[in-house]
Amino acid sequence: MSGNSFGRIFRITTWGESHGRAVGVVVDGCPAGLALSAEDIQKELDRRRPGQSRASTSRREEDRVEILSGLFQDRTTGTPISLLVWNRDADSSAYDLLQNRPRPGHADYTYQIKYGIRDHRGGGRASARETVGRVAAGAVARKLLEQRGIEIAAYVTELGGVSAEIPPLDLMQLASIAESNAVRCPDPVAAERMLKRLEEVRNEGDSLGGVVEIMADGVPPGLGEPVFDKLDADLARALMGIGAVKAVEIGAGKECAGLKGSEMNDPLLWQDDRVVFDSNRAGGILGGISTGEPIVCRIAVKPTPSIGRRQKTVDLAQREAAEIEIKGRHDPAIPPRIVPVAEAMVALVLADHMLRQRAARI
Amino acid sequence: MSGNSFGRIFRITTWGESHGRAVGVVVDGCPAGLALSAEDIQKELDRRRPGQSRASTSRREEDRVEILSGLFQDRTTGTPISLLVWNRDADSSAYDLLQNRPRPGHADYTYQIKYGIRDHRGGGRASARETVGRVAAGAVARKLLEQRGIEIAAYVTELGGVSAEIPPLDLMQLASIAESNAVRCPDPVAAERMLKRLEEVRNEGDSLGGVVEIMADGVPPGLGEPVFDKLDADLARALMGIGAVKAVEIGAGKECAGLKGSEMNDPLLWQDDRVVFDSNRAGGILGGISTGEPIVCRIAVKPTPSIGRRQKTVDLAQREAAEIEIKGRHDPAIPPRIVPVAEAMVALVLADHMLRQRAARI
Amino acid sequence: MSGNSFGRIFRITTWGESHGRAVGVVVDGCPAGLALSAEDIQKELDRRRPGQSRASTSRREEDRVEILSGLFQDRTTGTPISLLVWNRDADSSAYDLLQNRPRPGHADYTYQIKYGIRDHRGGGRASARETVGRVAAGAVARKLLEQRGIEIAAYVTELGGVSAEIPPLDLMQLASIAESNAVRCPDPVAAERMLKRLEEVRNEGDSLGGVVEIMADGVPPGLGEPVFDKLDADLARALMGIGAVKAVEIGAGKECAGLKGSEMNDPLLWQDDRVVFDSNRAGGILGGISTGEPIVCRIAVKPTPSIGRRQKTVDLAQREAAEIEIKGRHDPAIPPRIVPVAEAMVALVLADHMLRQRAARI
Amino acid sequence: MSGNSFGRIFRITTWGESHGRAVGVVVDGCPAGLALSAEDIQKELDRRRPGQSRASTSRREEDRVEILSGLFQDRTTGTPISLLVWNRDADSSAYDLLQNRPRPGHADYTYQIKYGIRDHRGGGRASARETVGRVAAGAVARKLLEQRGIEIAAYVTELGGVSAEIPPLDLMQLASIAESNAVRCPDPVAAERMLKRLEEVRNEGDSLGGVVEIMADGVPPGLGEPVFDKLDADLARALMGIGAVKAVEIGAGKECAGLKGSEMNDPLLWQDDRVVFDSNRAGGILGGISTGEPIVCRIAVKPTPSIGRRQKTVDLAQREAAEIEIKGRHDPAIPPRIVPVAEAMVALVLADHMLRQRAARI
Repeated sequence: MSGNSFGRIFRITTWGESHGRAVGVVVDGCPAGLALSAEDIQKELDRRRPGQSRASTSRREEDRVEILSGLFQDRTTGTPISLLVWNRDADSSAYDLLQNRPRPGHADYTYQIKYGIRDHRGGGRASARETVGRVAAGAVARKLLEQRGIEIAAYVTELGGVSAEIPPLDLMQLASIAESNAVRCPDPVAAERMLKRLEEVRNEGDSLGGVVEIMADGVPPGLGEPVFDKLDADLARALMGIGAVKAVEIGAGKECAGLKGSEMNDPLLWQDDRVVFDSNRAGGILGGISTGEPIVCRIAVKPTPSIGRRQKTVDLAQREAAEIEIKGRHDPAIPPRIVPVAEAMVALVLADHMLRQRAARI
Repeated sequence: MSGNSFGRIFRITTWGESHGRAVGVVVDGCPAGLALSAEDIQKELDRRRPGQSRASTSRREEDRVEILSGLFQDRTTGTPISLLVWNRDADSSAYDLLQNRPRPGHADYTYQIKYGIRDHRGGGRASARETVGRVAAGAVARKLLEQRGIEIAAYVTELGGVSAEIPPLDLMQLASIAESNAVRCPDPVAAERMLKRLEEVRNEGDSLGGVVEIMADGVPPGLGEPVFDKLDADLARALMGIGAVKAVEIGAGKECAGLKGSEMNDPLLWQDDRVVFDSNRAGGILGGISTGEPIVCRIAVKPTPSIGRRQKTVDLAQREAAEIEIKGRHDPAIPPRIVPVAEAMVALVLADHMLRQRAARI
Repeated sequence: MSGNSFGRIFRITTWGESHGRAVGVVVDGCPAGLALSAEDIQKELDRRRPGQSRASTSRREEDRVEILSGLFQDRTTGTPISLLVWNRDADSSAYDLLQNRPRPGHADYTYQIKYGIRDHRGGGRASARETVGRVAAGAVARKLLEQRGIEIAAYVTELGGVSAEIPPLDLMQLASIAESNAVRCPDPVAAERMLKRLEEVRNEGDSLGGVVEIMADGVPPGLGEPVFDKLDADLARALMGIGAVKAVEIGAGKECAGLKGSEMNDPLLWQDDRVVFDSNRAGGILGGISTGEPIVCRIAVKPTPSIGRRQKTVDLAQREAAEIEIKGRHDPAIPPRIVPVAEAMVALVLADHMLRQRAARI
Repeated sequence: MSGNSFGRIFRITTWGESHGRAVGVVVDGCPAGLALSAEDIQKELDRRRPGQSRASTSRREEDRVEILSGLFQDRTTGTPISLLVWNRDADSSAYDLLQNRPRPGHADYTYQIKYGIRDHRGGGRASARETVGRVAAGAVARKLLEQRGIEIAAYVTELGGVSAEIPPLDLMQLASIAESNAVRCPDPVAAERMLKRLEEVRNEGDSLGGVVEIMADGVPPGLGEPVFDKLDADLARALMGIGAVKAVEIGAGKECAGLKGSEMNDPLLWQDDRVVFDSNRAGGILGGISTGEPIVCRIAVKPTPSIGRRQKTVDLAQREAAEIEIKGRHDPAIPPRIVPVAEAMVALVLADHMLRQRAARI
């Protein structure tokens, strides 16, 4: 009810504030018998961690995951898996000045008005640090999906107006190229231009938005529950629920508005004694249920709201207009860092629907 | 779990197939004491009903709602409100030929593979007729929201490549203009061009996609539950879960990808002794919580998949390639008809979060 | 949230008031492919219907179930099954006098104070008529359980101080004897004495309480989710949620308080190459998970609160002490009529946990 | 879905095994603004802790709670409250011998068959240590309830066949007496006899069952959601879900089976310009909704299954009959230690329904 849990069968609950003692997640509903190690989770947390490149903040956290429950002899037991990461490098002083001055584009004002009280330090619960729990839980979901041959990868396709050209490679190859550069773009040429744009806006004390594409290969047909828990509806919620995301597309996405039915419909073919689709403008989902084709999602990510420039705001204590200048450590662009988070959210949705599907037939 | 319920406190469960005996919805969690009449609901169902204009199908249904429970002396009692609409004009013969030949762009194939059995007549549960329950329940939610001064309206902003110019009017005025033409567009000039495009593609046996914008005025700040049940996340799920929707945007939406932080951030102002925002690129939501500014959503709707042209598909019984020609009654464009459905979904999300918010503080 | 839904995967939502237009239930989450007919449901509704014996009220309802959705060619399709029973013989006049005078032992006062408004006619939503939906949905659950060899039966073991001696027969034989007499007791001698007691208290304008035992045979080991959704916890909730139930026992039940560990523990045996238990004081559940032995529950049912005698109450309109004399049709004892309801509730719990169990292992 | 969460609005998720690294709980949905300190929680954990008296085990745990999130300046912020207690004194060697030999009366066999794998050390997740999370979360719920003047206390009314006579004192006085003796019985004379019985069975290597009564004073009328989430139904689930509980009673409980309606019904009186009840056989609940009278629950607790005597069981590895002798530290009776756990569960139910009630009226 209070929004810190996600999923129905494979269900996670995250907790923790940016400058609190720790952040963590409880994964409930992971089936028993899954091989799982701290390394499986650490690997994804390392991808999420800031401070790795020119494109991200300089905050340094070791972010070592501790598995506190739910495993026995390196396998899941069907009981809740509690994962914890201590907060170490938290400097709250920069935030104290901001306590009564909501940062534009941030959740400061809305948390204050909703709850009447908030932990303002580092953005509190609204900080990107909250995604540690998502990514850790997502790593568990990925292990489960891998067993069924499902692979998920995301990458940046647009940043600061620079668009990538996605090479015709398979998903894991795209992911591999994307991971090799600081903006996580599978088009190395575009990546260079994106980095240059980033450098420019950083110098201006400004920030950039972009687009991230998330794909899932190997998803069997039949996942998704009509009519409200459609697979695309649940993916939309999962992805729109990541901070800074302002749009979610499935398959052809917004482009479909300009197409005719004869251009949009994906023809069905009979090939190798089974159904395949001749195109995938549906993004792998029809009627809210997976078709067996790759799942394709895209999210638009707004520019980092924390910018170096002086901005207009209000002083809630003085009840008057005010100005603000944000110091501290901030990514000039969110899309590269959102990549592992978006993958995690898609993994959580798919793992959940995979388990839900087990109840579909007698 | 099986996806036919929506909402946490204000919770609805829809049921019924296109060519079954009836369709309906149970509304649970509506607070006691709300004045409600069949007319309140019928009014919205009439807006949803097909057969009203050149832009929609010729199927004729009276669609009279029956209130079977939950009211006493024209007020809600806090018990479930059961709403039912009988199916009358259902001609299944046109569908029998299609039983084994999945229509491209439809849910026929995915339902079959998910459940191993399906009611193919009229699209069964995947039919647009399923939205009767959503709209009826949404009408109850709207009554509740009206009490708090919240108004919701949607309209078509793009159809078949024709874009509307939204006049600088207040929401109810826009809605009024939109309701006055067959494409529900608040720009009468664009509306004419859209209708012309529709006529053209109908003659080609084809169909068109478009964009619908949904706004909510009067939403108080503080609605929405971080971190997974953000107001925008729940709106995205609600809207992406409507058939034919392939993209959901909040506020600036996809456009934000090309903006800088200094362009995207909405400055806060102190005006009339309270906080307002100088712009609304956030679409009325920050950190998943409403800001007090209007909520702005946009959906991209794919072209009607049922087109008159011959299409490639498969025959699941013969296990071979096949062709299909779809007869019967179909809207050449979905956006005008999706308008009341999208409004209903937004109303359901807001009513639910309004009630959820009551538990936010001691 | 508002309490009219039950179950997680196999999930039902009931609606309707005693003197409203109809009562009904939506069954969501029933797997596709289950053979189901109106007769399967009618059979259980007929067992629930009043007016069949000296032990029950004289209200006459035909109670014909209508299946409005969810079936195709006599099989479930995985979509919601909407079941409806019209209310026909509702005489509200007797209740109008009571509108402001809450009947002792009834929910009149609590509904009024909770909601500020209530449908007082026939007890409204708090009427035993509400169980029509439970029994109809339970019949669907039973069909699903039968497929797995699970059988459920309940019978009266105590009424008005008369205790039955349960003969050493198998469950279906016990059920058959119980169904053959008006008090649904599997001990024909005790049944006669119970009927005589009933006649006596009826003449006194009074009523009797009793005990009902519910058993489930064939339940496989492994059902139930620790730690809060234990099978016994869910059964306790299901049974305590039936009107008039004031105690729930599992296995040895309350008697366990007086036993030693060496008397209570059921020894495990190795027999026919599998585990069996040498006794079943656990009632088929250990640690909240089924053991494979029969599930044994017992409920204590209070005497019918509607009695012919003059009783003390208050007048909520006059805000003063008052008296009340209840007219109308009332069972002098509830246990015989609660039998099919209790069976239905147990069936719903088991069907749900059977489906939940599918997600327990990779 | 996997049963480790409890509550709808005030919702907790517990995690941890007896001999794992830690146990804990995440409390989600606690309203913002509640004053809360570690001491508030520690106080209840100390009451739960073993090793305090002759009546409990000799395992020594410091059980210091750590609050990892959700507080700011000693008040709740509306974000999840993560509570953790490290496991320190865990000696698993005694359990290794039992790995393949399920202990009678324990969950060993059922966990093994459900999940195919289990952490057998110390009973794993099925250990009484799991209740640390319940008690910690319950302490938060109690703080919330105290604000509304609601007090909860439990005490032992029967142990090993010895029944207490409850003195006519108010609830907090009863609680105070009960806390002053090792069996937590509010009748000091009976307490002495209970202790003597305990000593006797301990010497026999056996154990005793008993009865615990839980009361809540100050509960306002109107809490509880008909028809499935009745307050008594939710209490029954909460209490039956505590390990070793085999029966739950509300008010008159099982005794009601032998009463007449005229004896069971509680008359309503008009006193001091409001409704009161002349008796409370209903246990403070009518139609599933609180009446304003004290809530009265009773649970029957089975004797500790871990007894010193040799018992029959099976060897799951050898697939044959076997014997077992349980060493280690075990309470000879559970009721005294269940007291704070039962209080916690009742507090969780009441806090949740208190928040749910906020949505009952417009």
